[in-house]
Amino acid sequence: MSFNTFGHLFRVTTFGESHGPALGCVIDGCPPRIPLTAADIQRDLDRRRPGQSRYTTQRQEPDTVRILSGVFADAAGGQEMTTGTPIALLIDNVDQRSKDYSAIRDKYRPGHAGYTYDVKYGLHDYRGGGRASARETAARVAAGAVARKVVPGLVVRAALVQIGPHRIDRANWDWAEVGRNPFFCPDARAAAQFAGYLDGVRKAGSSIGAVIEVVAENVPAGLGAPVYGKLDADIAAAFMGINAVKGVEIGDGFAVAQLSGEDNADEMRMGNDGRPRFLSNHAGGILGGISTGQPVVARFAVKPTSSILSARRTVDRTGRETEIVTTGRHDPCVGIRAVPVGEAMLACVLADHYLRHRGQVGEAPRWPRAASQDQ
Amino acid sequence: MSFNTFGHLFRVTTFGESHGPALGCVIDGCPPRIPLTAADIQRDLDRRRPGQSRYTTQRQEPDTVRILSGVFADAAGGQEMTTGTPIALLIDNVDQRSKDYSAIRDKYRPGHAGYTYDVKYGLHDYRGGGRASARETAARVAAGAVARKVVPGLVVRAALVQIGPHRIDRANWDWAEVGRNPFFCPDARAAAQFAGYLDGVRKAGSSIGAVIEVVAENVPAGLGAPVYGKLDADIAAAFMGINAVKGVEIGDGFAVAQLSGEDNADEMRMGNDGRPRFLSNHAGGILGGISTGQPVVARFAVKPTSSILSARRTVDRTGRETEIVTTGRHDPCVGIRAVPVGEAMLACVLADHYLRHRGQVGEAPRWPRAASQDQ
Amino acid sequence: MSFNTFGHLFRVTTFGESHGPALGCVIDGCPPRIPLTAADIQRDLDRRRPGQSRYTTQRQEPDTVRILSGVFADAAGGQEMTTGTPIALLIDNVDQRSKDYSAIRDKYRPGHAGYTYDVKYGLHDYRGGGRASARETAARVAAGAVARKVVPGLVVRAALVQIGPHRIDRANWDWAEVGRNPFFCPDARAAAQFAGYLDGVRKAGSSIGAVIEVVAENVPAGLGAPVYGKLDADIAAAFMGINAVKGVEIGDGFAVAQLSGEDNADEMRMGNDGRPRFLSNHAGGILGGISTGQPVVARFAVKPTSSILSARRTVDRTGRETEIVTTGRHDPCVGIRAVPVGEAMLACVLADHYLRHRGQVGEAPRWPRAASQDQ
Amino acid sequence: MSFNTFGHLFRVTTFGESHGPALGCVIDGCPPRIPLTAADIQRDLDRRRPGQSRYTTQRQEPDTVRILSGVFADAAGGQEMTTGTPIALLIDNVDQRSKDYSAIRDKYRPGHAGYTYDVKYGLHDYRGGGRASARETAARVAAGAVARKVVPGLVVRAALVQIGPHRIDRANWDWAEVGRNPFFCPDARAAAQFAGYLDGVRKAGSSIGAVIEVVAENVPAGLGAPVYGKLDADIAAAFMGINAVKGVEIGDGFAVAQLSGEDNADEMRMGNDGRPRFLSNHAGGILGGISTGQPVVARFAVKPTSSILSARRTVDRTGRETEIVTTGRHDPCVGIRAVPVGEAMLACVLADHYLRHRGQVGEAPRWPRAASQDQ
Repeated sequence: MSFNTFGHLFRVTTFGESHGPALGCVIDGCPPRIPLTAADIQRDLDRRRPGQSRYTTQRQEPDTVRILSGVFADAAGGQEMTTGTPIALLIDNVDQRSKDYSAIRDKYRPGHAGYTYDVKYGLHDYRGGGRASARETAARVAAGAVARKVVPGLVVRAALVQIGPHRIDRANWDWAEVGRNPFFCPDARAAAQFAGYLDGVRKAGSSIGAVIEVVAENVPAGLGAPVYGKLDADIAAAFMGINAVKGVEIGDGFAVAQLSGEDNADEMRMGNDGRPRFLSNHAGGILGGISTGQPVVARFAVKPTSSILSARRTVDRTGRETEIVTTGRHDPCVGIRAVPVGEAMLACVLADHYLRHRGQVGEAPRWPRAASQDQ
Repeated sequence: MSFNTFGHLFRVTTFGESHGPALGCVIDGCPPRIPLTAADIQRDLDRRRPGQSRYTTQRQEPDTVRILSGVFADAAGGQEMTTGTPIALLIDNVDQRSKDYSAIRDKYRPGHAGYTYDVKYGLHDYRGGGRASARETAARVAAGAVARKVVPGLVVRAALVQIGPHRIDRANWDWAEVGRNPFFCPDARAAAQFAGYLDGVRKAGSSIGAVIEVVAENVPAGLGAPVYGKLDADIAAAFMGINAVKGVEIGDGFAVAQLSGEDNADEMRMGNDGRPRFLSNHAGGILGGISTGQPVVARFAVKPTSSILSARRTVDRTGRETEIVTTGRHDPCVGIRAVPVGEAMLACVLADHYLRHRGQVGEAPRWPRAASQDQ
Repeated sequence: MSFNTFGHLFRVTTFGESHGPALGCVIDGCPPRIPLTAADIQRDLDRRRPGQSRYTTQRQEPDTVRILSGVFADAAGGQEMTTGTPIALLIDNVDQRSKDYSAIRDKYRPGHAGYTYDVKYGLHDYRGGGRASARETAARVAAGAVARKVVPGLVVRAALVQIGPHRIDRANWDWAEVGRNPFFCPDARAAAQFAGYLDGVRKAGSSIGAVIEVVAENVPAGLGAPVYGKLDADIAAAFMGINAVKGVEIGDGFAVAQLSGEDNADEMRMGNDGRPRFLSNHAGGILGGISTGQPVVARFAVKPTSSILSARRTVDRTGRETEIVTTGRHDPCVGIRAVPVGEAMLACVLADHYLRHRGQVGEAPRWPRAASQDQ
Repeated sequence: MSFNTFGHLFRVTTFGESHGPALGCVIDGCPPRIPLTAADIQRDLDRRRPGQSRYTTQRQEPDTVRILSGVFADAAGGQEMTTGTPIALLIDNVDQRSKDYSAIRDKYRPGHAGYTYDVKYGLHDYRGGGRASARETAARVAAGAVARKVVPGLVVRAALVQIGPHRIDRANWDWAEVGRNPFFCPDARAAAQFAGYLDGVRKAGSSIGAVIEVVAENVPAGLGAPVYGKLDADIAAAFMGINAVKGVEIGDGFAVAQLSGEDNADEMRMGNDGRPRFLSNHAGGILGGISTGQPVVARFAVKPTSSILSARRTVDRTGRETEIVTTGRHDPCVGIRAVPVGEAMLACVLADHYLRHRGQVGEAPRWPRAASQDQ
C-alpha cells in the first residue's frame, strides 16, 4: 500500500519521483490568515538543494517552488495569506539525466529500495530510485516551511553531530556555525575534521553514515496525543520515515538503558515566571508522550547511501546473479542533506499536534489549574 | 488530544486506567474465520503479568481476559471464530490499592507523565499514573495475541539484551533460554548477571533502564506503505509509544553512522528456492520502508521508572516547591515487562501492513515479475 | 472490511452483537473536565430502550450503562469529570433468547443483512442479526449523550414526521408533544392517527417505513470541513449508516429540484445582535458544507424491518430455494426507535466538527472580520 | 477545518480554486500495473467541461489534464502503467476573468458559500467561489476516471432524471440517449421538454434544481465496511459533498417510508450461474451497508445555483444591508454538469471499498461458503 499523507489536522500529501516531470505537496488543514509567499518556502528549499558543495550530489536542481492554491489577498493591495484551504506546492524537475541509469536497468542495488519496490509493486523504476529517491524530501522541506508558521514563536533547528567515527564536541556547540560550513555542523573544529574525512570517502567512491540532532524551542507544554499519537511516537515515525534512517532517539535516547531512576528524573522547581521549570532535560522535552515545555530534542541516524563505486554482488530481475557498480551522481554522505529534512519533519509534527491539542482542549492554558478552565 | 487507536486496517483501540474498574481493547478489521478463544490471548497476558518474580511490581493482577464480541461458532458444535466485526476484550482491575498514592496526591513525580497530563488536561490522576500507567500495556498484549494469527506463519519474539551497563553476549543467544529466566534474557550467563545486579537496584529502592530486541520471522516481502506509512516508521511509532521508551533502532540502528556503503550493503544471491536471498541483514529486514523477506529486527530502549525511594525535588499543583518519594509498589526495571509488549506491538504493525498490502496489491506474489500479474 | 469507528477528533468506536454478552463503545478525544455520570447517559438510553410500548419489539433490555474509564474526580468529594482519555461504556445484553432464531438458521431473510454479511465474511450470525442488529444503536445513543455536552448550548431533538402514508401537519409541530406519545411525534393529532394505523400493521405481522426529522439548535456558524468533510456530507453518512436508512435530506432536500434560484436563496439582513440573520432556512443551516448559524435541519427515511410474518421466497446457505417466515420479536415500525438514534448521530457529528473547527481556526469568532483575528 | 482527502485505501486529495492558476488532485493507494494515460482521464473531463451547450456556463476551459507522477513504462517501448505510488494530476485554469466579480467583492450572495467561508476562515474569495466553486469538481472527475479502472468490469453511469417539475418517464430509459442530448437525459422525449423549459429559465436569468441518478453495474457482492463505513453511508457522504446537493437516496430512497415489509423485501431465488439472484432491487444493491451483487442505484438532488439576475437582499462584510445581483457567467441548471461528477464519486467510493474488502478478507469468494475459505 502506498501512503503518502502524514499528519492529522495539519496534513501533508506529497507526490513525485526522482525522474518524473515534477514533485510537490498538498498541505491541508493549515490555519487561515497566515501570511505566506513562495519566498518563505524557497529559503528552506535552498538549504536542502543539492550541488551546493562537493560533499553532496552534483545534480543541478534549482528547486524553484510555485504556490498553486490556498493563498489569497482579499484586501486590495493586501498580502497573500493562507485561506484555510489546500496549499498546493509544485517543484519542477529539470536535471533528470535518466541515461545514467540505463546500465543497471534490471539489476537490484544492494541496500537500496529498488528490490523491495519491485517485490511490492511489480515495477522497477531504475531511474535513480523513483519514488524512493531522496529527491522526494524537497516536498517535505516545502511543507515544513509552512508548518513553522503555525506554532507561534516556534524555532526548529538541526545540526549534524556525527559523520562516520567523528563526533562533535558538545562544548563547542554554536548554532551560528551551522550556517557556515557545508555540513550543518555546530562545531567549527569538527566541521574541519568532517571535511578532510569526507574528501577521502568521496574520492574512494564510497559513502558513510551520520547522526543528526533536531531541537525545537518554544514548544508549548501539553502537545501530544496519548497513547497512540504520543508526540515522541509521531516524531519517531516522522524521522524513521526519512530516507535511509535506521535509528531515532528522544532526549537521552539509548543512553537511558544505563541511567538510574535518580539520574533520569528531571527535577522541578518554580521558575521566576511562576511556571514550573526543570533542572535538566533527560526527557528531551517529552513525558508520557506530551511536551513538557522544555526544548524538544531528538536525533536520528542515517545510513550510507547505496550508490557506491565498488562492485557489490547482486541479482537481476530475471533471477540471474550478477554484480553492480553505481556510477551516477550521488551523495558521499546523504545525511548532510537530511538536516533540513529533519527540521521540516519535526516542524510538521509540532504544527499538527498544536492544532490537535487546540481541537480537544481549546486555547486556555491548563496550568496552573483554575476553576475558570472548566467547561 | 487523546488518540487511543492505532493501525489502519487492523485497528486497535484501547481504554482504561491503572486504578479504574477495568481496561481493555476493541480490535476492528480483523479478518473473519480465524479460530480464536480467550485462552489464545491469556497465554500472552500471562507472560506480561506483574508479580511473577521479585524483579517486577508486586501488584497482584490475574489479568483474566474476556471476549465480549466478534467471535461466533456458526456451525453446531463448531469452534469459535472471528466474525470480521469488532473483537472487544475486557480485563478487570482487581488490586488497585489507591490509598498507596494519597501521600503524593498533589505532587508531580519527576520523570513521570503526571505533570504533562495535568498541563494538558487540567486533571491529575495521582493513582498510579492513570492512563499513563504501564498497566495499559495489558490491552496491547491482548491485541497482539490476535494480531499474531493474522499473518500466516508469522513468529514474533523478543528478548532483553541489556540492563544498565550489562549487555548479553550475542554468541550465547538461545531463544529457548528466554522462557527460563525472569528477564526474558536469551543468554543464560547474562541472566545470572542481571539477577545479581537487579537485586542491588531493587534493594536500593532505585530503578534502571534496559534495551529490548524484537525479531519477526516469516514476514512476507513487500509489506510497508511508502513514504509516510513505511514499515519501519510504523514500528518506530509503535515502539516509541510504549511507556518509557526513548530510542528505537531498525537493523544496525545507530551503528550505521559508522558504516561505509560497502559494509552496509546487504549483498544478494539466488537462493535454492529460486528467490533472492541476502548475505547479511544490516537493514533489519526493511529497505525503503518495505520488508525484504528477511527477519525484521528492531530494538528499543526503556528508561528507568520514576517510582524510586530517593527523594527528588519537585513542585506541587499549587506551585509550591517540595520533595517527593514514591513508596508504592513498583518495577525496579520496567523494561522487563516491556518484552511481551514489544512483541505485541510488532505483531500488530505487521498484521496491519499485511492487510494494507493485500488491499492495494492483492494476493498474487509480485516476484519474479510475470505478465500474469498484470491486471 | 469492518469499520466501527466514526469521527475525527471526537471519535466513537462501538462493538457488540445482538446476542453476545454485551455491547458498548469507546469515546476517544472528548475534551477534559466535562462533568459526566452514568445517569447522564442512561437518560438517553431509556428513550431508545425497546419494549416501552406495543409498537416496538418486546425484547426486555434494561440497557443499564456502566462507565469503565475516562472519568475521575480529582478533588476530594468532587464530581466525576471527563479526563480527556478514552471513555469506555458497557451495556450488558440480558434477554437474548437465541432459540427464537434456530428455525431460520441457514435461511437468508429477504431485505436483511444476513446474506451480505455471509457473502462478505463467510459467517451467518442467524441470532437476530448479530452485528447488523438495531441493538448496536444503543452504543450510538450512549455516545451521543456525551457528545451533547461537548458543544456549549447545543440542543439536538428529533421527531417522527411520517409513518407509511401518514405525514404530520407541520402547523401542529410542538416539541413538548414528542415526549407524550410512543412515536416521538410532534403533532398530537397525527400521533393518534399513527396509533390506529400501526396497530393494524402490527396485528397483520407486517411492518412499515417512516421518516424522522432531526433539528440541532445553537450550532455555531463555521462548522464543517470542506470539501470532503463537509458538515452535511458527514451528517449524510451518519444518518445513512443507521440501520435501515435509505434516504437523507438537508434543509429542503429533494424539494430543491423544483426550486428556482430566487426561491432557494435564503436572503440576509442584519439582526439586532449585530450579526447577520437569514430570512428563511431552505439550506437547513448549511451552505458550502459549513454551518450558517441557523438551526441544522435534516431528515432520513427508514425502511420497514424485514422481520415479518408473511412467507417470502428465499434461498439458504447451501444454495437451496426455500421460504422464510420470521416469528421472533420485532418492531412493526423500526423507525420509531431510530428517533433518539438520529439525535445521537447528529450530536456526535456536531461535537466532532466543533473540535475540528477549533483545531484549525481556534476559538476567536471570525465574523465580523477584524485585524485582531490574524495570527 | 479543511479536509480535502477522501477514501481510505484509494485516497483522493484535491486542491485548487476557481480563479487560481491551477487545480488538480493526488490519487494515493491505486493498485500498480494498471495501464493509464492522460487520454483515459481526458475523456471523462471532456464530458464535464463547461461551455459545451447554452445550458451550462460559458466559461471556456479546455480542462487539459497532465499526469505529473505515478505512472511509468518499465519495459522498453512498453505502455505507461500505474506504479502504486501517488498519481498527481494537474489542470490549468485558463479563463478566470476575475474582473467579473469586482462589483460584488464585499457582498455575500444568498444561498452561496461565500458567507460561511468568511465566517469560518475570515477570508472572502469573491472570485467565483474560490474553493467552493463547482470548478473543483474537475479534479473529482479526473480521479474518478482512474477509479473506474480499479474494479474489474465495473461500469458506472449517470443520468439526469428531473429538472424542476419535469421528470423522465422511466419506461423510456435508454442509456444510449444520455450521450445524445446536452442534459445527460436517458429519455429523448423528456430531453426535448427539458430544452424548452431550461431556455426559459436561462433567458429569465434564473436557475433551477435537478435530480441525478447514478447506477453502478458489476459491483462485486460483499463491498462495504459496517457499521460506520457502510457502502451506502460512504456513497451518501460522497454525493452530499458534491456542490449544491441537498438530498441522497439509495434504491427506493424516501419511498420506503410508504412501503410494507412485504413489498420492500427483495426475494431471492437461485440463478442459472449457481449464485443467488434477487427478484427486485428495492435495496438499490446494498443491504446492511454491504453490496448484494445487484446494481448499486443512488440518486441525489441538486439545488439551483445562487448566481441569478434578480436582486436579492443581503449584507456585506462590514455588516451593512444591501442587495446583490450576479451578472457573471453561470449555469442555469448546475445539476447538468453534476452528472459526470456523480459517476466519478461513485466510482471512487467503489474502488476504495473494493480495496478495503480485499484487505480484510482477501480475494477468495466467500459464497457459497466452503471449508477452503478458512484461514
